[in-house]
Amino acid sequence: MQIAMVLYPRMTALDIVGPYEVLSRLPDASAVFTAAVRGPVLADTGALRLVAESDFSEISSPDLVVVPGGPDVAAQVADAPLHEWLRAVDAGATWMTSVCTGSLILAAAGLLRGRPATSHWMVTERLRAYGASPVSERVVVDGRYATAAGVSAGIDLALTLAARIAGPEVAQTIQLAIEYDPRPPFAAGSPATAPPEVVGFLRANPALVVSS
Amino acid sequence: MQIAMVLYPRMTALDIVGPYEVLSRLPDASAVFTAAVRGPVLADTGALRLVAESDFSEISSPDLVVVPGGPDVAAQVADAPLHEWLRAVDAGATWMTSVCTGSLILAAAGLLRGRPATSHWMVTERLRAYGASPVSERVVVDGRYATAAGVSAGIDLALTLAARIAGPEVAQTIQLAIEYDPRPPFAAGSPATAPPEVVGFLRANPALVVSS
Repeated sequence: MQIAMVLYPRMTALDIVGPYEVLSRLPDASAVFTAAVRGPVLADTGALRLVAESDFSEISSPDLVVVPGGPDVAAQVADAPLHEWLRAVDAGATWMTSVCTGSLILAAAGLLRGRPATSHWMVTERLRAYGASPVSERVVVDGRYATAAGVSAGIDLALTLAARIAGPEVAQTIQLAIEYDPRPPFAAGSPATAPPEVVGFLRANPALVVSS
Repeated sequence: MQIAMVLYPRMTALDIVGPYEVLSRLPDASAVFTAAVRGPVLADTGALRLVAESDFSEISSPDLVVVPGGPDVAAQVADAPLHEWLRAVDAGATWMTSVCTGSLILAAAGLLRGRPATSHWMVTERLRAYGASPVSERVVVDGRYATAAGVSAGIDLALTLAARIAGPEVAQTIQLAIEYDPRPPFAAGSPATAPPEVVGFLRANPALVVSS
């Protein structure tokens, strides 16, 4: 199966590298990084470039698509070439998936109308504007559409997909291979568990996470 | 502070992108991807290139170094240019750190003699050959040397470092920003929790994880 890992300027690298690290290990899987234009794509921090080995025109019938998020939501929901490509490959794909604000891209492309979906906790409600139903869960699967919460949630999404695609034993083998036995040093990964002052700080300074 | 993210051919991308995503968000931090030669560096899967924006000669006094792992351990423990650079920057660095088999690189460079350290669960015992003391923990900090277990453990390492460097509130803010509230779909991330048949399968097929 061909797995298209989408890149675009100012995406968040972990959003796509997390799922890639899991999904590229599926039997008979071929991961390909793709973007509007071939070549290096600069991530949100300005410090890292990931290389798109293909442009969208070369990837016409992927089996699985992963769309990452990033801080520049205004650009993402206005990215017509990406939306057009997503609509074009949607019909033939087995899975259309996203991480973080990537769900706003799928939604803005018109692919999540009437569907439950998740996103980064700071922007989940924005899904409503595109007819999707926001859900505050780590991973939301609705038919062949799967969305994950913020950034690191892409790993959980990918293991969930791996189990659906190749069975739980394969997913568990991949999980053990990447030693995904998380031990966060703090209980601060969601607004429900983080100290109120930490949640309050980010709510008061949303530009630290999303710029628009 | 300058944070040097090391790249080399056939590294595992998540080993370095996990810590990068956390550490690049530290206040006043500047992350730089570096390798023996500038330019795109192909990861272990053959599907992803990360770009080294500098070569080792340009990064002479990083404050923090992160060394990723990868399947080709034989090449890693014989990588003289990398070892020489690590020894050269060690004296001036505040933190020397690794993810996965990256600890074997630090150890082969002579930097972990007499120190407790961890690595990917399948190769931890190999640390002994370089005078280090293998420890089966997610993150091991010994003075200014910090090592993480396999692949995904780099995120836990980086949050641990973030707390030491900038305090727990900053680390928690970063954790909430990347929504690191892991929900693995299986309890299969360590040999202690994975189903015995999954552990047995990887032990019988080590080349799926490390090639030598």
